[in-house]
Amino acid sequence: MNSETPDPFDIRVIRQAAERLSGQVVRTPVLNSPMLDGLNDCRIFVKAESLQLTGSFKIRGALNKILSMDPKDLHGGVLTYSAGNHGQAVAAGAKLVGCPVVVVLPNTAPAIKVENCRWWGAEIVLYDPVTQMREEVMDEIARQRGMTFISPFDDFDVMAGQGTVGLELCEQMKELGEEPDAVVINCSGGGLASGVVTAVSAYYPKAEFYIVEINGAEKMANSIMTGAPQRVTPPLTVMDGIAGPVAGNRTLSVLMQHKVKCLSTNDEEALGAVSAAFRMLKLVVEPGGAASLAAVLSKKSHWTGKNIAVICSGGNADPDIFSRAITSTVR
Amino acid sequence: MNSETPDPFDIRVIRQAAERLSGQVVRTPVLNSPMLDGLNDCRIFVKAESLQLTGSFKIRGALNKILSMDPKDLHGGVLTYSAGNHGQAVAAGAKLVGCPVVVVLPNTAPAIKVENCRWWGAEIVLYDPVTQMREEVMDEIARQRGMTFISPFDDFDVMAGQGTVGLELCEQMKELGEEPDAVVINCSGGGLASGVVTAVSAYYPKAEFYIVEINGAEKMANSIMTGAPQRVTPPLTVMDGIAGPVAGNRTLSVLMQHKVKCLSTNDEEALGAVSAAFRMLKLVVEPGGAASLAAVLSKKSHWTGKNIAVICSGGNADPDIFSRAITSTVR
Repeated sequence: MNSETPDPFDIRVIRQAAERLSGQVVRTPVLNSPMLDGLNDCRIFVKAESLQLTGSFKIRGALNKILSMDPKDLHGGVLTYSAGNHGQAVAAGAKLVGCPVVVVLPNTAPAIKVENCRWWGAEIVLYDPVTQMREEVMDEIARQRGMTFISPFDDFDVMAGQGTVGLELCEQMKELGEEPDAVVINCSGGGLASGVVTAVSAYYPKAEFYIVEINGAEKMANSIMTGAPQRVTPPLTVMDGIAGPVAGNRTLSVLMQHKVKCLSTNDEEALGAVSAAFRMLKLVVEPGGAASLAAVLSKKSHWTGKNIAVICSGGNADPDIFSRAITSTVR
Repeated sequence: MNSETPDPFDIRVIRQAAERLSGQVVRTPVLNSPMLDGLNDCRIFVKAESLQLTGSFKIRGALNKILSMDPKDLHGGVLTYSAGNHGQAVAAGAKLVGCPVVVVLPNTAPAIKVENCRWWGAEIVLYDPVTQMREEVMDEIARQRGMTFISPFDDFDVMAGQGTVGLELCEQMKELGEEPDAVVINCSGGGLASGVVTAVSAYYPKAEFYIVEINGAEKMANSIMTGAPQRVTPPLTVMDGIAGPVAGNRTLSVLMQHKVKCLSTNDEEALGAVSAAFRMLKLVVEPGGAASLAAVLSKKSHWTGKNIAVICSGGNADPDIFSRAITSTVR
């Protein structure tokens, strides 16, 4: 990057996003449990994005993108392909500003996810994954209807929105009179991680950053090692929220610049963290949203005596999987 | 009461309690879910005391009482008999100030509850409920060791501590730019309800107040009707947190003065509210803590178009009962 060009992604764009989102999203609490601290001999500060509107941090990025769009583009509406946390967030964001929204889904998508997107006012376009390519279906709609695609992560406006999680965390740690020694963040495409790292490092330059991926599907860790975005085959896992197939390009660049460290976790540890959050924090966290906490709880000695900020990124848990987590874990 | 004597329980003592508790307890968030609002055609603002230290509002009252004690009494320590939310709160409060604490329990108490009290540093004294009277065991310890009994509800300092829930609610509604038309509060002995009603009515004199009890065991409603504290046989219920046998005297007087209205709910509705809080608010609420929400959800038309503040008072849910709630409810 030319040194005379301002960095397109820094703390300033995150502060602008925070201004745009002010009053529209939840300032989620930072919670602590002495019992949880006692398990690990460290202090754990949980940023509970599970309590965010739509049940995950994704609304921050989606809404910041929508609010940053040119009014004439907004008139055409927005488009995405996820029926998960990002899809609901785009639908909710569009509803908040009153613009049209289409969610493109395979005709095999679970009914409950389709219903959730519809609840937020999204028009659902189904395609046949056997005979149709998703990208072609999306391109066709975008072209015909003048709709703008909202990327789940590889977009500076989306990343800036997610970065407001980190900005709030910094304010809240200050209110608590504490400083984070390390920040542990779930990572799939890298939108949340790149935003949080950028925000927190501006306030706490000595803080260490850890991203957490699914064991055996570490696309971002591989991307950091090779210096280019890598793909993985989406694994069969309860951590569906972070099981996307590809790392972002812009997000990778930010994470490399900040020298993040890479951890991974597995389903058993994630379900254990879901149970710990249930028992000690009284939070409903989905397994993919608890991967960060799982990594902290499974590497006990690593954190001894430190202040660890953990982003629990989502709470859209399947009731059956949640039940399994809370009833099967040894107490 | 003599009109020249200042009222021993008013907004001023609640403000004093808030100052004492500042920085020691969690300022729990007020959460809203557009989906939950949609079920009822009203706006529901949930004060999530389940996220409080020890998992319920009880720490506020216990700690305010402890912090209000004469230093020489504090030296002797504190004493209580509950292994539930109040017992844990007294143990945690004593730990925060570093004073001795005894919890008197029947030798039939569940191991997990005994462990929780021990975790907070409480000394456990077991008695045989077949051959010993709890009151006699407690009196003996209080006399021998100079310990002060902390009532779960019928004490102005305890009531003032619980009232800080209402004080925070008022501040938070103001921050949200909203006013509550009604406040719905779980009620057993009446500590929380009397505190919240006193605090909120000072800011919103037109607000209506509803207490929620267990259907068929409405001790406070009966007390209000008769003008004297009534007892009930504790019912067999999943709402153990509000299944105490008796209404308070001081609390009754406050609730009568404020002309609260009385509602009741049953186990099925409470489990439905636990499930709704899981799905739409991502909160772990115990059935007794969700009675208020259950009453709101089961009387839909009553609240149409209104702003309803609901106190969800605790999150210490049994995993098996919680699983039953979230997997059995029709979505």
